[in-house]
Amino acid sequence: MSQQKYDLVVLGSGPGGQRAAISAAKVGKKVAIVERMRELGGVCVATGTIPSKTMREAALHLSGIQQRAFYGATYRNKENITAEDLRMRTQMVMSREWEVIRAQLTRNGVDIFVGSARFADPHTIIIDHHSEIVEISADNIVIAVGTRPFMPPGVEHDGETILNADSILDIKKIPRTMTCIGGGVIGLEYASIFATLGVRVTVIDLAKDLLSFVDTEIVDALIYQLRQLNVVFRLGEKVVTVSVDNSGDTPHAVTKLESGKIVVTDVALYSAGRQANADTLDAEKAGLIVDKRGKLTVNSRYRTEVEHIFAVGDVIGFPALASTSMEQGRLAALEAFGLRDDRVVPDIYPYGIYTIPEISTVGATEELLTQESIPYEIGVARYREIARGQILGDDSGIVKLIVDQRTRRLLGVHAIGTGATELIHIGQAVIAHNGTIDYLIHAVFNYPTLAECYKTAALDAHNRLAALHSVKKNPPVPQTA
Amino acid sequence: MSQQKYDLVVLGSGPGGQRAAISAAKVGKKVAIVERMRELGGVCVATGTIPSKTMREAALHLSGIQQRAFYGATYRNKENITAEDLRMRTQMVMSREWEVIRAQLTRNGVDIFVGSARFADPHTIIIDHHSEIVEISADNIVIAVGTRPFMPPGVEHDGETILNADSILDIKKIPRTMTCIGGGVIGLEYASIFATLGVRVTVIDLAKDLLSFVDTEIVDALIYQLRQLNVVFRLGEKVVTVSVDNSGDTPHAVTKLESGKIVVTDVALYSAGRQANADTLDAEKAGLIVDKRGKLTVNSRYRTEVEHIFAVGDVIGFPALASTSMEQGRLAALEAFGLRDDRVVPDIYPYGIYTIPEISTVGATEELLTQESIPYEIGVARYREIARGQILGDDSGIVKLIVDQRTRRLLGVHAIGTGATELIHIGQAVIAHNGTIDYLIHAVFNYPTLAECYKTAALDAHNRLAALHSVKKNPPVPQTA
Repeated sequence: MSQQKYDLVVLGSGPGGQRAAISAAKVGKKVAIVERMRELGGVCVATGTIPSKTMREAALHLSGIQQRAFYGATYRNKENITAEDLRMRTQMVMSREWEVIRAQLTRNGVDIFVGSARFADPHTIIIDHHSEIVEISADNIVIAVGTRPFMPPGVEHDGETILNADSILDIKKIPRTMTCIGGGVIGLEYASIFATLGVRVTVIDLAKDLLSFVDTEIVDALIYQLRQLNVVFRLGEKVVTVSVDNSGDTPHAVTKLESGKIVVTDVALYSAGRQANADTLDAEKAGLIVDKRGKLTVNSRYRTEVEHIFAVGDVIGFPALASTSMEQGRLAALEAFGLRDDRVVPDIYPYGIYTIPEISTVGATEELLTQESIPYEIGVARYREIARGQILGDDSGIVKLIVDQRTRRLLGVHAIGTGATELIHIGQAVIAHNGTIDYLIHAVFNYPTLAECYKTAALDAHNRLAALHSVKKNPPVPQTA
Repeated sequence: MSQQKYDLVVLGSGPGGQRAAISAAKVGKKVAIVERMRELGGVCVATGTIPSKTMREAALHLSGIQQRAFYGATYRNKENITAEDLRMRTQMVMSREWEVIRAQLTRNGVDIFVGSARFADPHTIIIDHHSEIVEISADNIVIAVGTRPFMPPGVEHDGETILNADSILDIKKIPRTMTCIGGGVIGLEYASIFATLGVRVTVIDLAKDLLSFVDTEIVDALIYQLRQLNVVFRLGEKVVTVSVDNSGDTPHAVTKLESGKIVVTDVALYSAGRQANADTLDAEKAGLIVDKRGKLTVNSRYRTEVEHIFAVGDVIGFPALASTSMEQGRLAALEAFGLRDDRVVPDIYPYGIYTIPEISTVGATEELLTQESIPYEIGVARYREIARGQILGDDSGIVKLIVDQRTRRLLGVHAIGTGATELIHIGQAVIAHNGTIDYLIHAVFNYPTLAECYKTAALDAHNRLAALHSVKKNPPVPQTA
């Protein structure tokens, strides 16, 4: 059997893998990508980011939640929302996304293999597609095989009453009540989608503080908003078992807590942790070390302990965002061919959390700066003060700036509300260019936009800083007002 | 009668006037603001930006146009949309905005006078409120009295069949057909709102090229999109008369063109030009010169020919945007009290045009750079290539970057599509900080967002620039890919 030989073989076609393959192809390398699922795009398209964000958009539209400021708190756009309403839309978007990815890889001359990949040796990959075996060899390999839901013993996942982040996309009907076990990003995103649709949701988490990497004020605002949608939080609670009770007319999910409480709902979503897929690759044949959560370890250039084998994306753990995985994939491919640019790039990336309302954050938090004894001031703008917020009917959005007290430099932006995941990039550009609040104070913003919050918040920070300087000797009162 | 004496009197409470008054109050000055209308906020809130943008939002929601990618081209969210549906929502937003403005002025200690203002002398203002006369005097005056619709002879404005930008807000029913005379910003915004609601719209303009200050490709895309909504364009046509024909069962608007064509529709909107209000102020008593369009002339520091009298906003003409008027108001107030900061602020401001789809633009256009012989390259991203575009069902949006061929600096951004007026501020921040496309290539963007268009467009520009350098001697091929 003659082996095909590649400059780069990429395992996994999610955001990280795609970007690695295309970056290498763009600089003229011979590239193959291997995907074990029928369609390209990995979990991101099949069961992750794309369907959940599309379901979110469908829930926003069908529920009419964004119109309630105008038509009253009980307004609904569609009376009987079905699981099929949600699935129709997610299927459409997933199909289009699959097409886009296939076209992009093909256009760039990347060979596509469908099947499960495993290592025969450090340079040889065996691809198994329904027992049809192909071997390919590679000078360089990027592992971007992602993760799968982690289901511990004691959780009776059946895909109907007890769900995980994969099976929730196939629900037959919208439940009346739901337990979300795990209040991380995935758990809170689904909790908000279903709460928006009118489902009574209970969120359970072992931690007392949710989303600990996000500004506390923003997390508090999210929890407040979700409670308005009847979400109940059980925090600092350990789940013992999640089981199906079939004794009634319909099955129920029964969640037992260590504290003795029992939560009974139509369905339960278990989304507390994920297992990485490196444990499926016979990775030891390549000399790789896989940890017990299926993850690989890399250095700052995304190389594993085997020099020509790279790993990117969820399989290497935090932050495990599609956005960062893409950038890791691109950098790994450039590194593999000695093309990586070593100009220093600011190491700041935003987080986007697609709850309802959505959250985004970039740069430093108050908590971090306090730890590091860097004096800061804040500046806050609320959507309800901004014309665009009123026009949209969003009166609860917040944009909060964190500003260096000494230099007036923008250090962080934390936002919740309509469009927060888009708006954050304005602050990110200012931070990356070492900009100050004076840029935001002087900049002209389109009126009416939510982006005006930056100006309002910068003026707020300016006024707080002026108050501060007024009590110091030789006050360096800035000239702007 | 004892005259009240102020450090600053502001005439007009639109965006420019408000900002002037508040900026002066914030630095401890005694300030009064005079508004001739019953409510604060000027034309912006009463008949301009706020109601038109709110009506636009209502049209987007009620028509369901943004959902048609999923539910088909004939999908409508509400079957029989009435003028009352639109008015209800605009009234709610206007009332809230009036409250916000009043609260903000009051909180800052600004005295509010309701009535028509006129000059008695360069320092004295007479305020006439239903024949009750008050006189106040001021060390400094900011004129921010705005504009009114200009109705030339030959246009029989009756507020029912022949409308202007004020009276269109009071229409009793949604017409079946409509003529928009004037294809400027206001004309095109209303043309898109009504076309979205299913009205058959004809746009007539004297110019052959609409919105000549906007990138041609973006304007072409707008015209293409509006034609998809059955809008007919009659460009390079001069309107002779617009009259009401009462001969049938219902009145019709009859628009006669110099070319001999006659356009008959249920209503006509005349929005070709506006008259500034400085002609209502007895301005000659203050020593001011008012031109025949009612406008005042100012220097670069917003001073009129009378040193202590400033003018800002629509009354001084182009660009006549709420956003720029606010900044002018702020700068005039600081200038009046010797507090203006002379650090150089980049003289770039964005335009936002709230058509459907919306347009925004900042920085240089291709046309301008070609004139100035500055070599540039472009980079384009389309929403349909971006996951967020597919999730939203917007497959026609475009983000186009203009990049300096020599330095890779970002010189301009031109965008059409969902959220364009917000997105533009990302590019604006990069331009203002002299950033290059390399920032956008390396930056991590939240996924899925429309903001990712910046990265895609920057990579497109990068690839075009690489092609360019490959044909030069000693190619300075950048290290990024």
